[in-house]
Amino acid sequence: MQRYFVEPDLFSENEITIVGDDVHHIVNVMRAKEGDEIYVSDGEGRSARAALVVLSPKEVKARVLELLEERPELPIHITIGQGLPKGEKMEWILQKGTELGAYSFLPFSSERTIVKLDAKKEAKKLERWRKIVKEAAEQSHRAVLPQLLPPSSFREVLKTAGEYTRCAIAYEKEGTTTLHQVFDELNAEDTLLVLIGPEGGFSPDEVALAEANGFLPISLGSRILRTETASQYVLACASYQFERMNDTDE
Amino acid sequence: MQRYFVEPDLFSENEITIVGDDVHHIVNVMRAKEGDEIYVSDGEGRSARAALVVLSPKEVKARVLELLEERPELPIHITIGQGLPKGEKMEWILQKGTELGAYSFLPFSSERTIVKLDAKKEAKKLERWRKIVKEAAEQSHRAVLPQLLPPSSFREVLKTAGEYTRCAIAYEKEGTTTLHQVFDELNAEDTLLVLIGPEGGFSPDEVALAEANGFLPISLGSRILRTETASQYVLACASYQFERMNDTDE
Repeated sequence: MQRYFVEPDLFSENEITIVGDDVHHIVNVMRAKEGDEIYVSDGEGRSARAALVVLSPKEVKARVLELLEERPELPIHITIGQGLPKGEKMEWILQKGTELGAYSFLPFSSERTIVKLDAKKEAKKLERWRKIVKEAAEQSHRAVLPQLLPPSSFREVLKTAGEYTRCAIAYEKEGTTTLHQVFDELNAEDTLLVLIGPEGGFSPDEVALAEANGFLPISLGSRILRTETASQYVLACASYQFERMNDTDE
Repeated sequence: MQRYFVEPDLFSENEITIVGDDVHHIVNVMRAKEGDEIYVSDGEGRSARAALVVLSPKEVKARVLELLEERPELPIHITIGQGLPKGEKMEWILQKGTELGAYSFLPFSSERTIVKLDAKKEAKKLERWRKIVKEAAEQSHRAVLPQLLPPSSFREVLKTAGEYTRCAIAYEKEGTTTLHQVFDELNAEDTLLVLIGPEGGFSPDEVALAEANGFLPISLGSRILRTETASQYVLACASYQFERMNDTDE
């Protein structure tokens, strides 16, 4: 069944209103009829199964049949700080990261970033990227819509360290912390920021600066991962570590 | 430093001979000179740092400087049985799976497979796919070159169950086993076959047939993953489970 996200103020316990592009999707792409069922989430954790009651070109209304008791969200909130990669890799990172449970994405430029985004390009990219995140969240049945923050610089990102329970930077060196050590110290609802470099990785100076700002250098397994694979590794391991609890509940 | 794979009989403890496409890469792409250093693996676990001593258009010879004590391989050997996906997704699955430590790949057609490969297409695809695996293995510094088996059918794949320590099929249903339960029963050198469906997944009949052949239905976390993401989830979790031992050794 198709899933849609609506703004929280359009989601009540009885009725849900859908506006914007999703109306076109429901009416013209899915060719839905009155009575057809859909899943709807408010992007903040509430989800429902609902039946279509009004289909107009501007607006669709659905009656809530059942509020869903789903647990599709990772117990810890992981923000993927991603050094802007070349080509279309960022789209892949956003799509896969959303499927794998990322809480938010924070793209940044650093010393070895090759891509340059001017203001106009950036606005266009952000719009496209937000659409990719939304579609991936719908397809993977997320209850929370991951936030995509506007591109920032490495130094600006370091300044946000205080907003997270723990901050880490993917960098292979002597005495690197492992993901196990990071995860073992986190509890449900904690927030983790993980910085992943662009294709060329981080410079030693950048890593030193991050460490001075409280970031832990972490290693991601025994092989060398490409920039577009690293975030998926982190998120899959977080699911493995933190969703075990869910398993034994059942 | 660049890494190359050679056949085991071209790899001795003193000298390594490189033939084929890699000669072109070393001589013309990298424009390497005598004395330049490279990494070479025999694809079966031996790796060395070596210095180029002979550069000819047909053959490159390198003197072994040091045999490497690397542990880039997952302790358990995972075969990704992948239902053939549409478009270029298989290329992505092979590239990422190789980075993340897959031991071998076994593509297959099943009930909901859309792609049809005739003999000619299949030979061409296999050649391209093998090249992608080799390049990814070089880039991610693997010591073992993952094997790519020729495309098979779902029923043929089920018949190979006896060749593995454990077999699993990715399928969400009541009472599904978790990856933790599968991994907890495996030890180093054990072999695991994981079947992942094409875009439409498996039919209930296929899952029943797999179960009758000893395959465990397993769930892959709390979200719905696309076919091209599932193998990466399995491999990252295996790294998280089995490479912890490596961490504490050091």
